[in-house]
Amino acid sequence: MVSFSLHTQLAADTSLIGRLSGCQLLLMNDARYPWLILVPEQDGLRELHELNDKTFHAVTDAIKSLSASLQALTEAPKMNIAALGNLVPQLHIHIIARRHNDAAWPGPVWGVGTPEPYSEDERQVLLATLREELSLDAT
Amino acid sequence: MVSFSLHTQLAADTSLIGRLSGCQLLLMNDARYPWLILVPEQDGLRELHELNDKTFHAVTDAIKSLSASLQALTEAPKMNIAALGNLVPQLHIHIIARRHNDAAWPGPVWGVGTPEPYSEDERQVLLATLREELSLDAT
Repeated sequence: MVSFSLHTQLAADTSLIGRLSGCQLLLMNDARYPWLILVPEQDGLRELHELNDKTFHAVTDAIKSLSASLQALTEAPKMNIAALGNLVPQLHIHIIARRHNDAAWPGPVWGVGTPEPYSEDERQVLLATLREELSLDAT
Repeated sequence: MVSFSLHTQLAADTSLIGRLSGCQLLLMNDARYPWLILVPEQDGLRELHELNDKTFHAVTDAIKSLSASLQALTEAPKMNIAALGNLVPQLHIHIIARRHNDAAWPGPVWGVGTPEPYSEDERQVLLATLREELSLDAT
């Protein structure tokens, strides 16, 4: 097991959905967009290309699967996939369902407006739905 | 050979560096950032997850290799990788070298300011350098 602790900013902004493919899958606490974040559980990573080939394939296969699932679940017309990390250096991949009337369309979501946190009820229902749809558990 | 024609907006904004892994590799004509765009040569694609598994692996392996090469070549402290497509629907993947003093740092580059085209000399030198570093030819 390699060492890992989630960046404090990611921990503050998200809830854990579950684990897959050596990653934590997080839900961004922003009701404006269905927004997943995938974080490989290995300290010190900054760039997608720093993953070794085996882990890279596991992570990218997870991105493919999660993007397809989130688009099917939300019926969103567009997905945005990105590894940026300009502000939070720990490697993390955004998987975001976009709608033509969302708060940032057609621009990117980062840095636009103010996050709108889910209510506690909404958050728990959404986490349960995502865990069921993605066949994950929260441990 | 599947049908393919490059989206007119991508054609207008870029120069062809070469082809690899069933994709066109393009140089964005914006001297503010070293900015590659990878476009799978298959009409009708909109989302990364729509690629079949074999093509997905070829494309993501190319992203990994190009990101590592562009970071090594530019010595940029950060890479940004993204498949957005909110404005140009044809599937294309951005591979951008970011610096702490670039025109958009630490925000994303899309929609920020006005592109600064390369001079014709700069563009030709950069294309030749990229073709050599990436072992591509322009055909």
